Amino acid sequence: MTDAPRYTPLAAALPASVPFVGPETQERSLGRPFTARLGANESLFGPSPQAITAMERAAREVWMYGDPENHDLRQALAAHHGVRPDNIVVGEGIDGLLGYLVRLLIGPGDPVVTSDGAYPTFNFHVTGFGGALHKVPYAGDLESPDALLARAAEVQAKLVYLANPDNPMGSHHPATTLAAMIDRLPQGTLLVLDEAYIDLAPEGTAVQIDADDPRVIRFRTFSKGYGMAGLRVGYAIAAPGLISAFNKVRNHFGMGRIAQAGALAALQDQAWLAQVRARVAEARASLAAIATANGLRPLPSATNFLTVDCGGDGAFARAVLTGLVARGIFVRMPFVAPHDRCIRVSCGDAAACAAFAAALPEALAAARG
Amino acid sequence: MTDAPRYTPLAAALPASVPFVGPETQERSLGRPFTARLGANESLFGPSPQAITAMERAAREVWMYGDPENHDLRQALAAHHGVRPDNIVVGEGIDGLLGYLVRLLIGPGDPVVTSDGAYPTFNFHVTGFGGALHKVPYAGDLESPDALLARAAEVQAKLVYLANPDNPMGSHHPATTLAAMIDRLPQGTLLVLDEAYIDLAPEGTAVQIDADDPRVIRFRTFSKGYGMAGLRVGYAIAAPGLISAFNKVRNHFGMGRIAQAGALAALQDQAWLAQVRARVAEARASLAAIATANGLRPLPSATNFLTVDCGGDGAFARAVLTGLVARGIFVRMPFVAPHDRCIRVSCGDAAACAAFAAALPEALAAARG
Repeated sequence: MTDAPRYTPLAAALPASVPFVGPETQERSLGRPFTARLGANESLFGPSPQAITAMERAAREVWMYGDPENHDLRQALAAHHGVRPDNIVVGEGIDGLLGYLVRLLIGPGDPVVTSDGAYPTFNFHVTGFGGALHKVPYAGDLESPDALLARAAEVQAKLVYLANPDNPMGSHHPATTLAAMIDRLPQGTLLVLDEAYIDLAPEGTAVQIDADDPRVIRFRTFSKGYGMAGLRVGYAIAAPGLISAFNKVRNHFGMGRIAQAGALAALQDQAWLAQVRARVAEARASLAAIATANGLRPLPSATNFLTVDCGGDGAFARAVLTGLVARGIFVRMPFVAPHDRCIRVSCGDAAACAAFAAALPEALAAARG
Repeated sequence: MTDAPRYTPLAAALPASVPFVGPETQERSLGRPFTARLGANESLFGPSPQAITAMERAAREVWMYGDPENHDLRQALAAHHGVRPDNIVVGEGIDGLLGYLVRLLIGPGDPVVTSDGAYPTFNFHVTGFGGALHKVPYAGDLESPDALLARAAEVQAKLVYLANPDNPMGSHHPATTLAAMIDRLPQGTLLVLDEAYIDLAPEGTAVQIDADDPRVIRFRTFSKGYGMAGLRVGYAIAAPGLISAFNKVRNHFGMGRIAQAGALAALQDQAWLAQVRARVAEARASLAAIATANGLRPLPSATNFLTVDCGGDGAFARAVLTGLVARGIFVRMPFVAPHDRCIRVSCGDAAACAAFAAALPEALAAARG
């Protein structure tokens, strides 16, 4: 049709894809709400009560735009991390910030390296800007720094992505491994270090990085440990030059006032985060016990979810997942073999664990039958 | 430095620009808060109390991601406008949606037409994707459909931008003028119709458009009439093909849960919007009377702000603005001559009007002296 919009060649060639189907879509299709929402690695323990109060207060002031500089939040984050505010950019979740980063560096054909089965939203952005994705296999259930570095050197990657801890496997590398990886980065390759789950990881997982080091940008979020996935606040720590480059492309007024207030209050309540860590550890143990009791193998987890090896192939795990979903338990699973032998279950409270425990044997029986 | 990120040629060439300096930045520089915040066309009358309640409730559920399909809000918006949900995309304010639209259509060198002095954030996006901006003059204080159409035909523009009502002048065209403009759009030119202020405009301003018409995309927001600028919710109405194309590039989980809940509740409280319209009209009249009493000329306004001709050149209006800011009154002014003879004042409550009335004579005297 001649009147249709004239898309760019790149946009015309892109699929109208969705990185993840939301649980609400599944609920509408099922015709009823889930009993337990354990598929998106949200924090069922919720945000700090102080953050809730701050958000409620901000709701009454929401007629005002948020501060486009995110000044107060960046100051607080800088103090928290012992860096300077010009080392920090705040944005609409890690997803939004990854999009800006990819836009800044990646044009048609530019090489990017990631692990096959790692975060699909990063891939969505790379593909969306025409980048050439090169995928290396995991080493077992761990992302492989060696494989990532080798491929990055081979293709002269502009970006190499690694999540530590990893999603969807829940595995992690110690800080020392990351430090060694950074020292071996090829010239001109920027490490995209996604630390979304770092707040739930064991001590010694977060690598010490000079915030002015131009070889790395690290991403953090209020979605996981802080329990505010629906608030959409992430941030990145990097050298000032790269941080400043975000101002070339970001949606300057994109951070809402409630989001800014909620994140700031959450950051100031580290005691809440500490008790969430404890409750997550407890829930991980409960979920692992449930899996084991059903003959399944829980993988070690440094996150707020447990990845469970169902002991069969992808089709079997898919059948278990389908059985759980049909029984009102929202879970997800890795996309790629051999990890798709697993399902991925978010940590929840006692009621959520009990719902999972009740549904799992039935789902397994259905999958086996 | 060889280790620095390798930006795309386009990104490397972009300035780290900010479309608008926020009032908080000015407050930090002044060392005190503004008495009256009248510069960003926010709604001092605030959001519906029902929306506040909905946001407070959602704050306690913010551990969950928002529905990536924005299903409930799109359903309600479709019913409200008498269109289908597949005619609607919801996003992070009009700013965010404009960015996605430009990304879908505009690559390096692609022609885009707008008015010189119109919305700078649209220009920010066009420049950010390498588009070639062609600017035509206003006709007096009105954007000129004739000039926009002529230039669009001449350069074979992919996009032509028009805001109705206009920002920063507050002027508007009747629906009939827009309808005639749409019928004269060049083949292959998409009209970007920014209706951010339409909720405050006189009856007969909103043009009737078949939502499936591929020649137009219209933008609406909860930032102005609905009083929720800090919530970041905008939407666009267009043909399903174009709406679906947003799914190729948008941040699918970018809409927060509080934003979705607040916007839905606000939409359902049309009585609140009606009383805001009445209070805005009253405030416009008060501000106009203050301007007139000070020997200035208020321009006709179809928005929630009043543009005031200070009767001199850009330097004089700038001096008046500086005087107001120094006296705790946050206002802005148009960027481009001859409109920069004006200052732009948002409608406020009686206290805000009184603060403006008290500061204006002093600011004028200082500017004249």
